[in-house]
Amino acid sequence: MLIYDDKLTAPFIAAHERDQMEAQLRVARDMLDQRTGPGSDYTGWIDLPETMDPEQIRVIQASADRIRRDFDLLIVIGIGGSYLGARAVIEALSHHFSAFLPADQRPGLPVLFAGHQLSADYLRDLIEVTRDKRVAINVISKSGRTTEPAIAFRVLRQQILGHLGDDQLADRIFITTDREQGALRQVADDLGLTSFEIADDIGGRYSVLTPVGLLPIAVAGLDIQSLLEGAREERARCLTSPAEGLPPCDRYAVNRILLNRKGYLAEMLAAYEPSMRYMTEWWKQLFGESEGKDGRGLIPLGLDYTTDLHSMGQLIQEGPRLFFETVVRFDKPNRDLILPSDPDQADELEYLAGTSVSLVNSRAAEATALAHTEGGVPNMEILLTERSARCLGRLIYFFERACALSALMNGVNPFDQPGVEAYKRNMFALLGKPGYEALRQQLES
Amino acid sequence: MLIYDDKLTAPFIAAHERDQMEAQLRVARDMLDQRTGPGSDYTGWIDLPETMDPEQIRVIQASADRIRRDFDLLIVIGIGGSYLGARAVIEALSHHFSAFLPADQRPGLPVLFAGHQLSADYLRDLIEVTRDKRVAINVISKSGRTTEPAIAFRVLRQQILGHLGDDQLADRIFITTDREQGALRQVADDLGLTSFEIADDIGGRYSVLTPVGLLPIAVAGLDIQSLLEGAREERARCLTSPAEGLPPCDRYAVNRILLNRKGYLAEMLAAYEPSMRYMTEWWKQLFGESEGKDGRGLIPLGLDYTTDLHSMGQLIQEGPRLFFETVVRFDKPNRDLILPSDPDQADELEYLAGTSVSLVNSRAAEATALAHTEGGVPNMEILLTERSARCLGRLIYFFERACALSALMNGVNPFDQPGVEAYKRNMFALLGKPGYEALRQQLES
Repeated sequence: MLIYDDKLTAPFIAAHERDQMEAQLRVARDMLDQRTGPGSDYTGWIDLPETMDPEQIRVIQASADRIRRDFDLLIVIGIGGSYLGARAVIEALSHHFSAFLPADQRPGLPVLFAGHQLSADYLRDLIEVTRDKRVAINVISKSGRTTEPAIAFRVLRQQILGHLGDDQLADRIFITTDREQGALRQVADDLGLTSFEIADDIGGRYSVLTPVGLLPIAVAGLDIQSLLEGAREERARCLTSPAEGLPPCDRYAVNRILLNRKGYLAEMLAAYEPSMRYMTEWWKQLFGESEGKDGRGLIPLGLDYTTDLHSMGQLIQEGPRLFFETVVRFDKPNRDLILPSDPDQADELEYLAGTSVSLVNSRAAEATALAHTEGGVPNMEILLTERSARCLGRLIYFFERACALSALMNGVNPFDQPGVEAYKRNMFALLGKPGYEALRQQLES
Repeated sequence: MLIYDDKLTAPFIAAHERDQMEAQLRVARDMLDQRTGPGSDYTGWIDLPETMDPEQIRVIQASADRIRRDFDLLIVIGIGGSYLGARAVIEALSHHFSAFLPADQRPGLPVLFAGHQLSADYLRDLIEVTRDKRVAINVISKSGRTTEPAIAFRVLRQQILGHLGDDQLADRIFITTDREQGALRQVADDLGLTSFEIADDIGGRYSVLTPVGLLPIAVAGLDIQSLLEGAREERARCLTSPAEGLPPCDRYAVNRILLNRKGYLAEMLAAYEPSMRYMTEWWKQLFGESEGKDGRGLIPLGLDYTTDLHSMGQLIQEGPRLFFETVVRFDKPNRDLILPSDPDQADELEYLAGTSVSLVNSRAAEATALAHTEGGVPNMEILLTERSARCLGRLIYFFERACALSALMNGVNPFDQPGVEAYKRNMFALLGKPGYEALRQQLES
């Protein structure tokens, strides 16, 4: 279901190097699993797929079913970990042109996003296309005070739902927030809204398998039980040390850290399916925010192949030797296509007539892995059986755990993000927020 | 219309450093403008905005008008420079949710893309949503033999247009290819298709202001005259050395090269409008493919702000000090929004009631520039008046010229891409293309 293959790293990493990392890896595993490392208060995700209350899943599914029955679309308001996971899974598993599909051919509702930036034009356009639609809103924010989603919620509540009474709002607004505190908890309680909890021990970038991700994913008509099932399977594999060696995600973490210590500064995650673009964005946040601190951290780059072989490919093949590459592939497409014969064409494709397009895609991947290895770019592969909820669940858990182990081996806290506050403080000061007067004076001078 | 502001680089670049680069810059300018540098055969883009035949623009516009009148949508088949420029301009200037707009509210047709990867599922989905539509196709490829677009063209021609006779095909297929040679030239001549020329002296990544980009952009209902007008204006500024110092694009090129020589390895292009995402992808190809060779080249990273401040922001603020940042901003939104007052909310936003969302976005940008500068990330800004075709035309020319000057100062050919062939050769061998038998044997062993 998930095969991690690092045999092409042989020219770059010797077997004894991995052996010599085992002690460091063991320390990282122990810190993680015994909750003794930095950031241990945020390790609720480790057992989540196993311990999640089935009743909670039932309630999420029931709300999703009601939203799908009563509304035309869902707007998810959130930023960072409060939107990326849901968007990643929805785009990875949905029709590539779902916006063009008639409602009766979609498995669920269109899910649109807001509150993940501050573009006025974006909000105006969103209001315009949703004006005559029956709209439900899911606001996702632990404090309810993050500027971007709070602004979007104020604006959309007035513009889209402004004509409704409080009882109608209670049907349309779904809150995902802190159990007890915060601005959204207060809104939920005041209006009697359906609400879901953001656990105290799971940070934003690790929250896709909580209600944060699961509600929007279920509204899109995707199978959240299978997603969790995949995560459970991968967890079981990660937590058991097989007799024949390291679990794949440990091995991936060790390879990454070894390459980083050899001077490779950037990891590229490449997928051969365009719908994986936001999974790659999710991966970038997961690794960038977990590892990028204390002057350390690999630069995470996302690539869509073969598209970006005609864009970033030149730099990868012949630029500075700073990259290594992790490729995500699927063993089979959901629906294949056969290249038709047309002997009159001068396109030099007739030798492929009768070949499936997915086979050409696979050969392109093998060809690229060999070309990049030859060019000095270490290459590893994660092969999933198919583009399904279950396989994505596995992939999510695999990356979450590999990321935590990598950060701990590198000696940093995988679960905090102190640097994100810097721009927020400055922004509050420049906007004149009460309490930031001194900083404002300093910035303006 | 386009203001380049590098005053925040003061802690990182001293004035004398730029002065001491003037001789190298002058040499690069001379090589470029006198066509004496490496790759000079591909400098047709320099004078293009000025010298383009008005009759050619008229013909492009007339074809676009006919496509808009007779069809429901356009599929553009192309990869790399044959699709990125068009997609970038179309997404930057279109409604954020144009797929959800009724046909009578769109300025032009939906433009969908194919042939830029090898996903079977993507092609199947595309065929599905276009089945009952009146579809026109624009195939863009110089040789007509690039694998990805050639496969898409074979498949879509059979699946979408298979029931039509040759005379009907002549109405629906538009070819953009080499003037005389190649597989597509032959198809165009055989079937009597409308065709447009890819100039011999303009490479793919510099081709957006040729028919390659202009036809799809015009079909989307955007103003190609204004786009060219903007490029003409920026060209005039670039080619005249103003008395008071370097033209902005020269200054940008010098700053980039200086920062690279000081050890900064990656340039981040960040925009505060989500519709600029593909402009950033276009920029990544332009710079990555032009500079990334001979073991050299800055790593181009694309960022959407403020979205990615909650994803890559942590790494940028506190990770390894390898980045500098170029921000693209707009002075005003197309349509603004005022944040409503709601004193009962606990979202801590009431101090912003009555403030425009675009002002908050601007303050976020200023706040981030200061935070990143403080954190050791050199920051520069490109301020455009508005998100319009004319401003984008300026930006395109600005980047094209700055890129060529940068590569020449770095001593590499800005206009070739020899490394892109590596994966193609391997792919042909693995797929069993005639002529690649020896390489196949070698790869399989």
